[in-house]
Amino acid sequence: MTHTIAIIGASGYTGAELIRLIATHPDMRIAALAANSKAGQPLGAVFPHLRHLDLPDLVTWEEIDFSGIDLCFCALPHKTSQEVIAKLPKGLKIVDLSADFRLRDPEAYRKWYGNDHAAPDLQAEAVYGLTEFYRDEITAARLVAGTGCNAATGQYILRPLIAAGVVDLDDIILDLACGVSGAGRSLKENLLHAELSEGTNAYSVGGAHRHLGEFDQEFSALAGRDVRIRFTPHLAPFNRGILATAYLKGEAEAVRYALATAYADEPFITVLPMGETPSTHHVRGSNFCHIGVVADRISGKCNVLAALDNLCKGSSGQAVQNANLMLGCDETAGLMLAPCFP
Amino acid sequence: MTHTIAIIGASGYTGAELIRLIATHPDMRIAALAANSKAGQPLGAVFPHLRHLDLPDLVTWEEIDFSGIDLCFCALPHKTSQEVIAKLPKGLKIVDLSADFRLRDPEAYRKWYGNDHAAPDLQAEAVYGLTEFYRDEITAARLVAGTGCNAATGQYILRPLIAAGVVDLDDIILDLACGVSGAGRSLKENLLHAELSEGTNAYSVGGAHRHLGEFDQEFSALAGRDVRIRFTPHLAPFNRGILATAYLKGEAEAVRYALATAYADEPFITVLPMGETPSTHHVRGSNFCHIGVVADRISGKCNVLAALDNLCKGSSGQAVQNANLMLGCDETAGLMLAPCFP
Amino acid sequence: MTHTIAIIGASGYTGAELIRLIATHPDMRIAALAANSKAGQPLGAVFPHLRHLDLPDLVTWEEIDFSGIDLCFCALPHKTSQEVIAKLPKGLKIVDLSADFRLRDPEAYRKWYGNDHAAPDLQAEAVYGLTEFYRDEITAARLVAGTGCNAATGQYILRPLIAAGVVDLDDIILDLACGVSGAGRSLKENLLHAELSEGTNAYSVGGAHRHLGEFDQEFSALAGRDVRIRFTPHLAPFNRGILATAYLKGEAEAVRYALATAYADEPFITVLPMGETPSTHHVRGSNFCHIGVVADRISGKCNVLAALDNLCKGSSGQAVQNANLMLGCDETAGLMLAPCFP
Amino acid sequence: MTHTIAIIGASGYTGAELIRLIATHPDMRIAALAANSKAGQPLGAVFPHLRHLDLPDLVTWEEIDFSGIDLCFCALPHKTSQEVIAKLPKGLKIVDLSADFRLRDPEAYRKWYGNDHAAPDLQAEAVYGLTEFYRDEITAARLVAGTGCNAATGQYILRPLIAAGVVDLDDIILDLACGVSGAGRSLKENLLHAELSEGTNAYSVGGAHRHLGEFDQEFSALAGRDVRIRFTPHLAPFNRGILATAYLKGEAEAVRYALATAYADEPFITVLPMGETPSTHHVRGSNFCHIGVVADRISGKCNVLAALDNLCKGSSGQAVQNANLMLGCDETAGLMLAPCFP
Repeated sequence: MTHTIAIIGASGYTGAELIRLIATHPDMRIAALAANSKAGQPLGAVFPHLRHLDLPDLVTWEEIDFSGIDLCFCALPHKTSQEVIAKLPKGLKIVDLSADFRLRDPEAYRKWYGNDHAAPDLQAEAVYGLTEFYRDEITAARLVAGTGCNAATGQYILRPLIAAGVVDLDDIILDLACGVSGAGRSLKENLLHAELSEGTNAYSVGGAHRHLGEFDQEFSALAGRDVRIRFTPHLAPFNRGILATAYLKGEAEAVRYALATAYADEPFITVLPMGETPSTHHVRGSNFCHIGVVADRISGKCNVLAALDNLCKGSSGQAVQNANLMLGCDETAGLMLAPCFP
Repeated sequence: MTHTIAIIGASGYTGAELIRLIATHPDMRIAALAANSKAGQPLGAVFPHLRHLDLPDLVTWEEIDFSGIDLCFCALPHKTSQEVIAKLPKGLKIVDLSADFRLRDPEAYRKWYGNDHAAPDLQAEAVYGLTEFYRDEITAARLVAGTGCNAATGQYILRPLIAAGVVDLDDIILDLACGVSGAGRSLKENLLHAELSEGTNAYSVGGAHRHLGEFDQEFSALAGRDVRIRFTPHLAPFNRGILATAYLKGEAEAVRYALATAYADEPFITVLPMGETPSTHHVRGSNFCHIGVVADRISGKCNVLAALDNLCKGSSGQAVQNANLMLGCDETAGLMLAPCFP
Repeated sequence: MTHTIAIIGASGYTGAELIRLIATHPDMRIAALAANSKAGQPLGAVFPHLRHLDLPDLVTWEEIDFSGIDLCFCALPHKTSQEVIAKLPKGLKIVDLSADFRLRDPEAYRKWYGNDHAAPDLQAEAVYGLTEFYRDEITAARLVAGTGCNAATGQYILRPLIAAGVVDLDDIILDLACGVSGAGRSLKENLLHAELSEGTNAYSVGGAHRHLGEFDQEFSALAGRDVRIRFTPHLAPFNRGILATAYLKGEAEAVRYALATAYADEPFITVLPMGETPSTHHVRGSNFCHIGVVADRISGKCNVLAALDNLCKGSSGQAVQNANLMLGCDETAGLMLAPCFP
Repeated sequence: MTHTIAIIGASGYTGAELIRLIATHPDMRIAALAANSKAGQPLGAVFPHLRHLDLPDLVTWEEIDFSGIDLCFCALPHKTSQEVIAKLPKGLKIVDLSADFRLRDPEAYRKWYGNDHAAPDLQAEAVYGLTEFYRDEITAARLVAGTGCNAATGQYILRPLIAAGVVDLDDIILDLACGVSGAGRSLKENLLHAELSEGTNAYSVGGAHRHLGEFDQEFSALAGRDVRIRFTPHLAPFNRGILATAYLKGEAEAVRYALATAYADEPFITVLPMGETPSTHHVRGSNFCHIGVVADRISGKCNVLAALDNLCKGSSGQAVQNANLMLGCDETAGLMLAPCFP
């Protein structure tokens, strides 16, 4: 059975990645593509790499007839997303890729994003979209909030460990390198090739990154107490990929056991043999996540590292995976593309 | 109907690309993977990006039982390939990705490769694998010789123009930039990241590149007279992609018409609107080829540019496309993956 | 003797490169730095890599007291440059890095830049800044116009050949790859890392690039007749460097002899042994230019390739070299930095 | 006064960087260049970017007449270095860039490098070459051991903090990204452009990296007790640069004060204003090191980040700085080159 799909925000990188994935999806058909700033253009003018696809031209989202749409992906910037989704039909299934519905607490939202939420009822309704841990809720949901890409990576490392009680909750450090597409298609000086290639730097150091709002919410709920981790992201000179390196207090064997158990049946998450570590090169362009555990030379301490593609498993791949659940498709449909290496 | 596939030379980049493509091919199943220097290892040890696939471990090619194999891809280095293929079962369908069977004339082979051919009967039997121009022969062939990746790109530009008689045959210039995967997974100083990134250089300048053997053979046959083009490849700091820029004497309108006519029904080749030019970014990871035509300010002269992915359309994608024909599959099966951008 | 220097347009890449070079120049001292959009900021806020230098804060150019300035570099965008320079003191020595004073003919200027020149008297006064060929005029000049970076590279190949009459003037092709810093620090989508890295494309194809105005002017003057070359630039994924590949009709030996003779005493230009070709890697960050000649397999034809750093020898290094002449310094002062490899 | 210099191991990246720096050094002259595997070749054949320099051809180190040499840089691989240096004249001043003389304890050397030291007397004689902290000993030394590049970066962060007692010694984490030139010019698959670009991975995770031997030795001596830090290096897709991110328990203000005090008079080390963080882009190609301090949102915790160029300040620049001290030159001579950005 083919489901009819609309994408709002089709001119950004996560929009393009949705289209790339759906292009070979056996059960989805794109019926409408919206990008208000580029309405009227064919998709190939905005993303020439998608010119071979037989797709409708870009329109404004207001022009879409949602009566025939089974599910709508919303890949707008945060803040805009909540305003637009509030105006969409109330019964429409929606997967939102912005930050707008990730935090359940209006206070937390205000703290991290600096403004009051414009759609608090939707905020309450939305299901957090980390598929492997919210599978049932997502299957039944109308509105799913895609997670932050860094937030997904960190949670893939830490959720099973917190749940299993195998690490010291007061001393969790998450160091992370993220590729440039994580910042979107925005015209900022620091995203220019000449500024960004051939080097690296940290940003939002010291606990200032917004994805900490998700970590705080999820880890505290899981632990039944406040959990505050330390988190430093770095901007690295590649386009796709996140590599997270967690510094933990806990026994490597117990840590790896908790991870292997949690992900034993997951199609997209692989826990590597003890001592092996992942590379972003090996998940590029795919929906896979590789996780490795290494004991430190200091007893009682270990590292866990995870690699995924921020645009795919960290964003649009996750969105398709969630949509598959919401529409009753096979969860892996359209997502088994092998990584593109080299 | 599922066809059973063997790949010899599975530890190189074209081998990996074959596996990536076949991983989502509806009608092919990999039954054997050979890589003599890495025999005994699981594929995931050699290519961790393919670890999610349920595939046989690497063996030596001598260990393969070919009785159940419908088609064998051979992705060995040139010279080795002719020796191995000469020992394979005589009835086995083979797509060779090396340079060994591209040149039909033993003299030309000796001139460009420096040694006598070890399997001249197979050299005579092999069909040149440029799908769009040898479709019927490939469909009927037992042994197909994959083209050079630069040779494919140049021919996509020039064959329709030579056939239509719309360019001066004595003044054809083909300038080209090729990504580093074109040189394979070989340990050479000039392929190190520290040597190759952040700059570019030409190589085999002045008519020394072996793919000229293919150009000479094919263009002369097509024109019914000797055609010798000028050709300069450049090594560029990216992993996948070829951009060819041809400098021609001929009318842009006639040139574009010849191209548009030749490729009107081709699923993978797009001729852009007059004046638009292609980018390797827009074909990366895919089997598509984009071609653009621009009139020069000097009347009677024009440029034609073509972009494709050297590992895919220039090599392994072409091989799968040819195998589809040889096996009676849909020609585009497994090959409609959208480019991976950004 | 120390000369006092002002730089207008200090917040762009050519401004930063001027400061980098002058930082170790034995005879120049920077007294004023202007960047109107960033006036009031310390230089280290705009270019943290220059924070170790003891330099004045950025001001508007109107705030500079030119009475104590010996020479002013003007690194503004074109069009702005002519307006600002028209208002500077009439006796001030100026090296302009913009496109505004490169073309001597007001008609040619209008044709290539689309507007009437705002300072035609200065246009008439300016000396074209290709040091090796205008050395005496530059030494005596008040206002020197820096050349285009592509225009410099092409002229280093072609001027000696046109002067010596060793190539066919009606069939000159110049193919070129330029690093991204050539486009400046401007916020354009195609200059983002995610759009530009890992691939290449041509631009201004078919004779549309403005540097052709310089080629037309200079080559025609040199030949005593109209000369129109074909020229295609490509945007390549590295920050610094230009590699030009010329396709010529002429004997390689005569061509190399003309080049070797022309540059025999030049400190920055090296003609490689016959058959060797240059690489941008080997001139990165320096004021050197490497030129190589290769005979084609087709007799009577040859390639000449040249590599230089667009920001240095192609722009700011050239500017310092010209300023050295204008101020009576040693021509190589501040410019003997070895290339930065890897 | 000009000092006469020999370089052994001139065909590697640190050798090339030494030559680049000495090329503009006012008081050093290179009299001999040795590279046994490339003896007989001109330097320009091995490093074309240095072809403009008037330098002697490469010889074997045994061919060098050391009677006229004031100081010898030894840039050989570890293990080879100790064997060669043991055979050099006993009175010759030597700066060694290998790992051979960094560890003072023969046991520690055996543990980290897997073999007995071949020159234990020299091991005892050598002075550890971290200039800012061993200045007097280096000035008086005959044999100086260059530090590991990662080891230098980590010590610039941690030595002042350990000395001032402002961080918890039992909970020091050092996360680090290093550019590819840190691995030298060796032919390894993981250093190929196609394998390394466009992604990142950790290596020597869990306390396995040899530079921990230096950290253990230096920090324990400084603290007067055993100090064992956690350390994870990452291989990042750029050629030059190290960015270290330390996770510390201590007050940010006290931490920054200790750093600012320690480096107040250092010409090459800059402590950024509180809250600012460094970037490798801003030190590339230079001898500068930028250090930034940021308080964490969790009170009592902070990050310190440091950036330097592994080839320059982390290796060859440090070596020249040490040689300056040993020869009585100005410590900064030849080292004030501004970073090369973009």
